[in-house]
Amino acid sequence: MPTFMTVQECFDVISADNPLELDGIELIHLQGWVRTNRSNNHIGFIELNDGTSFRNVQCVYEFSLTDYATVQSYNTGTAISVVGLLKITPENKQPFEIVCQSIQLEGACDSTYPLQKKRHSFEYLREIAHLRVRSNTFSAVFRVRSLLSMAIHEFFQNQGFIYVHTPIITGNDAEGAGEVFRVESDSFAKKNDHFFGKDASLTVSGQLHAEAFALAFRDVYTFGPTFRAENSNTTRHASEFWMIEPEIAFADLDDNMNLIEDMVTYCVNYILVNAQHEMKFFNDMIDKTVLDRLHRLLESEFVRMTYTEAIEHLLKADVKFDYPVSWGMDLQAEHERYICEVVVQGPVFLTNYPKEIKAFYMRLNDDQKTVAACDLLVPGVGELVGGSQREERLDYLESAMERFHIEKSGLEWYLDLRRYGGVKHAGFGLGFERFLMYITGMQNIRDVVPFARTPKNLDY
Amino acid sequence: MPTFMTVQECFDVISADNPLELDGIELIHLQGWVRTNRSNNHIGFIELNDGTSFRNVQCVYEFSLTDYATVQSYNTGTAISVVGLLKITPENKQPFEIVCQSIQLEGACDSTYPLQKKRHSFEYLREIAHLRVRSNTFSAVFRVRSLLSMAIHEFFQNQGFIYVHTPIITGNDAEGAGEVFRVESDSFAKKNDHFFGKDASLTVSGQLHAEAFALAFRDVYTFGPTFRAENSNTTRHASEFWMIEPEIAFADLDDNMNLIEDMVTYCVNYILVNAQHEMKFFNDMIDKTVLDRLHRLLESEFVRMTYTEAIEHLLKADVKFDYPVSWGMDLQAEHERYICEVVVQGPVFLTNYPKEIKAFYMRLNDDQKTVAACDLLVPGVGELVGGSQREERLDYLESAMERFHIEKSGLEWYLDLRRYGGVKHAGFGLGFERFLMYITGMQNIRDVVPFARTPKNLDY
Repeated sequence: MPTFMTVQECFDVISADNPLELDGIELIHLQGWVRTNRSNNHIGFIELNDGTSFRNVQCVYEFSLTDYATVQSYNTGTAISVVGLLKITPENKQPFEIVCQSIQLEGACDSTYPLQKKRHSFEYLREIAHLRVRSNTFSAVFRVRSLLSMAIHEFFQNQGFIYVHTPIITGNDAEGAGEVFRVESDSFAKKNDHFFGKDASLTVSGQLHAEAFALAFRDVYTFGPTFRAENSNTTRHASEFWMIEPEIAFADLDDNMNLIEDMVTYCVNYILVNAQHEMKFFNDMIDKTVLDRLHRLLESEFVRMTYTEAIEHLLKADVKFDYPVSWGMDLQAEHERYICEVVVQGPVFLTNYPKEIKAFYMRLNDDQKTVAACDLLVPGVGELVGGSQREERLDYLESAMERFHIEKSGLEWYLDLRRYGGVKHAGFGLGFERFLMYITGMQNIRDVVPFARTPKNLDY
Repeated sequence: MPTFMTVQECFDVISADNPLELDGIELIHLQGWVRTNRSNNHIGFIELNDGTSFRNVQCVYEFSLTDYATVQSYNTGTAISVVGLLKITPENKQPFEIVCQSIQLEGACDSTYPLQKKRHSFEYLREIAHLRVRSNTFSAVFRVRSLLSMAIHEFFQNQGFIYVHTPIITGNDAEGAGEVFRVESDSFAKKNDHFFGKDASLTVSGQLHAEAFALAFRDVYTFGPTFRAENSNTTRHASEFWMIEPEIAFADLDDNMNLIEDMVTYCVNYILVNAQHEMKFFNDMIDKTVLDRLHRLLESEFVRMTYTEAIEHLLKADVKFDYPVSWGMDLQAEHERYICEVVVQGPVFLTNYPKEIKAFYMRLNDDQKTVAACDLLVPGVGELVGGSQREERLDYLESAMERFHIEKSGLEWYLDLRRYGGVKHAGFGLGFERFLMYITGMQNIRDVVPFARTPKNLDY
C-alpha cells in the first residue's frame, strides 16, 4: 500500500536529518497537475505540481508502463495520480524524483488550455485570473501573500494586540480620503428609501473605529479590505485593497515609529525564512535587486528626519524636480525617492508635516504649524507606511475639524473618546498590496491581488 | 526608576515559577483606566484595567498620598498612571496588589460618562458601541473574537493552507444567496454610468473564487467579510458578517467532514486554553452551560447521519413540530435541534440532502436525487457549518445551472475549472459570528460584532 504524500511532504522528508528513514515509505502516492510532459519512445518526464509547494517534482515513467502512449499524451494542466518509488538523486538538480509504477488520470485537460508551457505576458495572464494561479509567478505571489498575512497576525498577536474587525459598510464620510463607493439594496433603491436609514458607503479606513478599541484594549490592529472609488488607472491603485491599521494607546510618535520598524522587519524576515524558493524565483525572474534590497533593509538603521529637514535637503539638491520644492508642499514620489535613495540611502521616517497637508485627526505640535505624523519611505518604492500620533485633546480636535470643514454630527462618538479617559495614542496604516509589491518586486498591483478590481474591470 | 509593566505582564510574573524574582522589579509603573474607585478617610482602592488583560489589578492608595482627595474623586473611566510596589497577596482573592506611591491623571472622565459601575442592559450598551468595549462583557467578547480569529489562521496555516483574499466587490449574482447590496460611485451614478462597467454588488460568499485557488494550491481558505441585504431583524442575522470558507482539492465529502471536525475542535480547544478567564466569566455571567457544552463537544464523536435517516427520526418523533415533516423539505431549526439534542445528543453531520433544496454547485449523488452536502449541527445552536463536495463534472454542473436558471455568462471561468484539470474537491462555510456566539454563549449577533450593521442601523 503506497503512502500518500504531498509534494511538500516529500521535500520535508528529503531534507530531514536522516533521509534513510525513507526506507519504510519509499512507495508513495502523489496527486497533482502536469506542468510539463516530455517523452521519447523509451522514457518520459512529467513535472508535477500539487500546489503544496512552489517546487515541482519530476516523475519519470518508462515505456514498460501500462498506457505509456496515453500518459505521453497528457497535456499541461492535466490532473493525475501517481504511484511510484521515491528515489534520492543527489547528483541531479532536483534532490529526488519519482519512478512511476502507475499513473492515473484524475482530470483531463485538452490542448485548448490557455496556460501553455511558453512564457505568457502578465497582461495576458490577467485575462485568465482563475488559471494564472497555476503559473510559477502567481503561485509564488499568492503563496507569499498568504505567508505575509500570517506574519502580520503573528507579529501583533505575539505581543497581545487585539485583532478588531472594523466595519466595511460605514455612514461616515468624514474620513476625507477621496471618493467613496455607495452601498444600497436594490429593493430599497426602488422605493427611494435607504436600507440603513441613511447614506451608506464602503470604508476607506478602519482607523477611527480602531481608536475606540485602542482606548479600551491599549494595543489593537485591523486587517481588512478598504475601498477607493477613484477613476484612475495606475499600476499602484486598485478600487479594493487590504490595509493593516494598528492603533496603540499610551503611545506617542516615537512609540509608533518603533512599532512600524519592528513590524516591517519582522514580516520581511518571516518571508525570507519561510518563502526561500519563492524569493529566489522573484530575484531571478522578476527583480534582480529584491533580495539585496530586503537584506539591506534588515541591516539598516531606520533614520528619522523631520519634514522641514527633508525640504532643506531637497532645496539644496543638485537635481531638477518636476515639482518645485517649497515648505508646505505635499512631497511627490520623486522627492520621497530622492530623500530615501540619495540622501539617506536606506529607510527613513519623515516626521512633523505641515498641518494643512495632513488629516484632521493628527496631533498638533507645539509649533502650531506641524502635526505629529510619520511616513516611512523605503528605497525602491517610496512611501510604504503612513502614521501619526492622534489628537487626544478635545478642544484641539474640534478646532481641526472646523478647519477641515468636518461635521461633528455622526462623529460625536469619536469626540467622546477624548471626553472620557482619552489618552495619548498613535497608529498607522500599511497598504498590504504595496508591502507585497515591495517584498516580491512585482510592479503592478493587479498582479498581487487574486481577482483585482479597477475601473471598468469586474470580470470574475 | 520604576519598571513599566502592563497588567498582563504583572499576572505573568506572578504566575511564573519563582515569583520571588520579583525582588528586582517591585517598584512598577502601570497605566490604565479606572473601573471602580472606592475610599474612606484613610484608604482607597482602585480597580485598574489597562486592556492587556481581562482582569483588573487592585491599586491601594493611602491617605499619606499627595493629592489623596483628588485621587478619591477620579470617576470610573478616568485614565491614570500609577507608580507603586507590587505586593504579592496570596491570602486575598487577587494574587497581588499595587501599593501606590503616586497616581497621575492621564485623561479625565467626568460623571457624565455613560458607562457606570452598575449593570447596564445589552440594549443600552449597543447604543454606546464605542464605549461598551470597556465593560467586562465586551472586553471578554472581543478578546475571544481576536483569539478565535488567530486560532483559525493557525489551524489552516499549520497545515499549509493558502489564505486567499477573495473579492468583496463582485459582478456575480449567480451565487443565489438572497438579496445583495449594490455598489456604485456617486459620480458615475450621476452620469447613469457604471464605475465597473456593469452592475457591482457586495459578495455573499468567496467560495467560487476559492475553488479556483484550490484547483491550483490544493488546500486554501478565505476569512473575510460577507454581506446580505435581507430586511430582517433577528438575533442571528446581520447585514455584514465574517465567514471562513476553506476549499480542498482531491477531496470528497468525508475529507470535508474530517476537516470541519478538526477545525472546530482545534478552535474550541484554543479558546479554552488561551481565554480561561474570559470563558469563566461567560460561564458565570452569560450562560451557565457554556463550558460544559464546549468540553462535551471536545469529547464527542461527531456522528454522521444522512438527511433521509434524519427525516425518518423526525417522522417517528413523539413531538409536535410547527413545520410538518416530509422527505424533500428544508429542515427548520426545530428539526435540527431535535436531531442533535434529542436523537444524537451531540454534534452530528447531516449529509446527502435533496438536490432541490441545496445550491447548484453541489455534487449530484449516484441516486440522482441527493447531493453530497454536509451540515454540522451542534446542541444549543443548531447549524454551525454548511459544506459540500463540489460538482466537478462539467456536464452535470451545466445541467444543474440550467435547472437553477443560472446564466453561464459571467461564470465561464467557473466552468473552466472543470474543463482544465478539474478534480474532485470540497469545501465549507463557517459563519464566524455564529461560531463566536456558540463559544461565548452570547445570544445576539449585535453583541459579538464590534460595530454591527443591521437594517436601519448605521451609527458609528
